[in-house]
Formats: sequence, C-alpha cells, structure tokens
Amino acid sequence: MYEGALADLVDELGRLPGIGPKSAQRIAFHVLGSDKADVDRLADVLRTVKEQVRFCTVCGNVATEEQCRICRDPRRGDELICVVEEPKDIIAVERTGEFRGRYHVLGGAINPLDGVGPDDLRIRELMMRLQAGATKEVIIATDPNTEGEATATYLALMIGPMGLAVSRLASGLPVGGDLEYADEVTLGRAFEGRRLIQ
Amino acid sequence: MYEGALADLVDELGRLPGIGPKSAQRIAFHVLGSDKADVDRLADVLRTVKEQVRFCTVCGNVATEEQCRICRDPRRGDELICVVEEPKDIIAVERTGEFRGRYHVLGGAINPLDGVGPDDLRIRELMMRLQAGATKEVIIATDPNTEGEATATYLALMIGPMGLAVSRLASGLPVGGDLEYADEVTLGRAFEGRRLIQ
Repeated sequence: MYEGALADLVDELGRLPGIGPKSAQRIAFHVLGSDKADVDRLADVLRTVKEQVRFCTVCGNVATEEQCRICRDPRRGDELICVVEEPKDIIAVERTGEFRGRYHVLGGAINPLDGVGPDDLRIRELMMRLQAGATKEVIIATDPNTEGEATATYLALMIGPMGLAVSRLASGLPVGGDLEYADEVTLGRAFEGRRLIQ
Repeated sequence: MYEGALADLVDELGRLPGIGPKSAQRIAFHVLGSDKADVDRLADVLRTVKEQVRFCTVCGNVATEEQCRICRDPRRGDELICVVEEPKDIIAVERTGEFRGRYHVLGGAINPLDGVGPDDLRIRELMMRLQAGATKEVIIATDPNTEGEATATYLALMIGPMGLAVSRLASGLPVGGDLEYADEVTLGRAFEGRRLIQ
C-alpha cells in the first residue's frame, strides 16, 4: 500500500523479533519524521555491529576481540565457571556484582519440541574447558523453566564423572515480592530450600 | 554493560517508539546473529526512506514525488475530501475500496493535554484547499476517541460557514463482532444511529 522505500522499510522492520506489522508501520513513520542524523546513526551502528562484534572463542559471549572482556580480565578467577544460556544472561549476573569467575554461554537450552538437542549447544566446548583442569566448580545458571532445568540436569550428568562440584542457582521467593502472590511451584521450592537461621 | 557497537545499537534501538530496553536487547542480538546481507538491507532502506520519501505538498500523505500517488491520480474525484489524522489512516480507508475521492492528512488530532492545538495541525492547508472550490463534501474520518471527536467538532464549526456538506464516519457495532462484548458507548451509538430496514 505504501510507495517504494517506505513499503520496504515496513517489510524489513517486520522481520525483527517482537515487531508486528503495526509496530513496523509505527517505527517507519517515526523514522520518516526523525532527523537525518539520527537515522544515519542507527543505520551506521547496524552495520558496525555486524562488522565489529563477534563471539568470544573461549566462552561464547559477545566480544570485540578474539576473547571477550571477561575472558581477557586477569583479575578474575578460573576456578568458577558460570554456565548461562545467552550472552544477555551474563549482563544480568554481572549486575549482581556477586560473581568474579568466568562464564560459558551455551547458546540456548535443550528443547526437543524446537529440535534443540545437546549437540546444538556449546556443551562440547564446555567439556573441553573443564578438561583443561583449572575449574573447581560449575555453577549452572540456565533459566528456571522446563528447558533450563532439563539442560541443568543434563549438564550435571555430564560433569559429575569429572569429579567437579556442580551447583544450580537457588530457586525461591523473589526478594521484595509478596508471599501471597508467589506461584505454588516457586513457593514449594522456597520450602524445599529453606535455611536454618538460628 | 556491552562492549562498543553493541551497546550503541541497544541504545539507538531503544529510542524507537514502542521498543523498551528488553526489546532493544533482543533485536540487537537478533541483528548480531543475522546474515550480513539482511542487516545491510535494513541499514540501506533506513537511509533510502529518509532520502526518497517526503510528504505530499497537497494532502500531507507520504509521497515519493512532490504530490502523492492519490493526489496525482486523474481518475479520482475532487468533490469528496476525506480528512484523516495520519498517513496510515489513508491505507486503512483505501483497503475498504469504498472511497474514490481525495484525502487530507491533519498530522494528528487536537489534544490540549499534549499541547496540540488547531494551529499545530494542517487545518489552514485544508481551508485553502476547500476555498479553491472543487470540493462538495468533507468526510471527517478522525479516530473515534475523545481527541478525534474534538477535532471533528472543531472542523465542522470551521467548515460549516463555507456551505459545504460535512460528514463523520458512522459509529456502531464492528461487523463480525459479538453484541454482548460491545462496550456501552459503542452500543449506545449503535442505538442512536439505528436505521430503518423496512
């Protein structure tokens, strides 16, 4: 219905994840009404990301060099490896300021319905890192959902025979939340994982 | 938290309407995992839209030349002008295939809370088109909400003294909908606007 380039833009935007036809149209009109400099900046950075950003050859995190910022950092310890599904999970863990070890990005979780099996994830790379010997404990920080739990169980089975400690992030009540609004599975886990305080 | 270009991309995407920080991050990672050709196409079309698409000098619709496709079309009549808020509303009306006249885009609706008054809309341009004399009826197709209704009332007052017919799109039950799910205002309008069928 639109002419030329505008139709193409709506089309291209509609291919991005989470952007439906209405949002694509809204963004296209926003672009049309924006300063040329702003649009150029967006177009430039799209290209730059593809040219400059790649994945760390060690952990699979996003990186601008062969290794990511965290793998290059000599102040971080090699004894702990935190296994996450996606690079954005690293950001979430880093924000806590609680973890000073290294990471390993799987690139997803085991999900038979979507055809994602162990071989589609960076599990072989993880095993090779663990065989190198510096690691003492693997902290599995996959998402607390069915796929994440299945992946954690699979990893625990694989790593167990290597004699390393394997831990899973605690499930329980979110801090700052209301007990009455907690779902029954979370509340059940909070009971299971209760700790003596005196 | 991200390095260089990726942080910039998340930032730029987050400035687009309807895209929050989480969506921006999701799209940025999608871009990172896409083919270079796809990303180049998006970057190109963003620039092309800014270079090639402008607003029709007659009606305010999007256009690739001085006048838009509809204003240039000699097969369309000049007697009816349909007034809409945004260019995307033209697409919606065109899809019905019911209207063969011309359009006028206001560029919004009167909204005192957001500081949008009649002078911020293309109402002066509409009056000049109407004074040119070819128009017989103005169909006001602003949105059926408070701002759209206020704008319609204002336009009717302005156009009334010119002796032209002024109409407003009918309000009533959406076709294909369920009566029991209609809100009370819409159902009230449907009663008001009832038509004798025999």
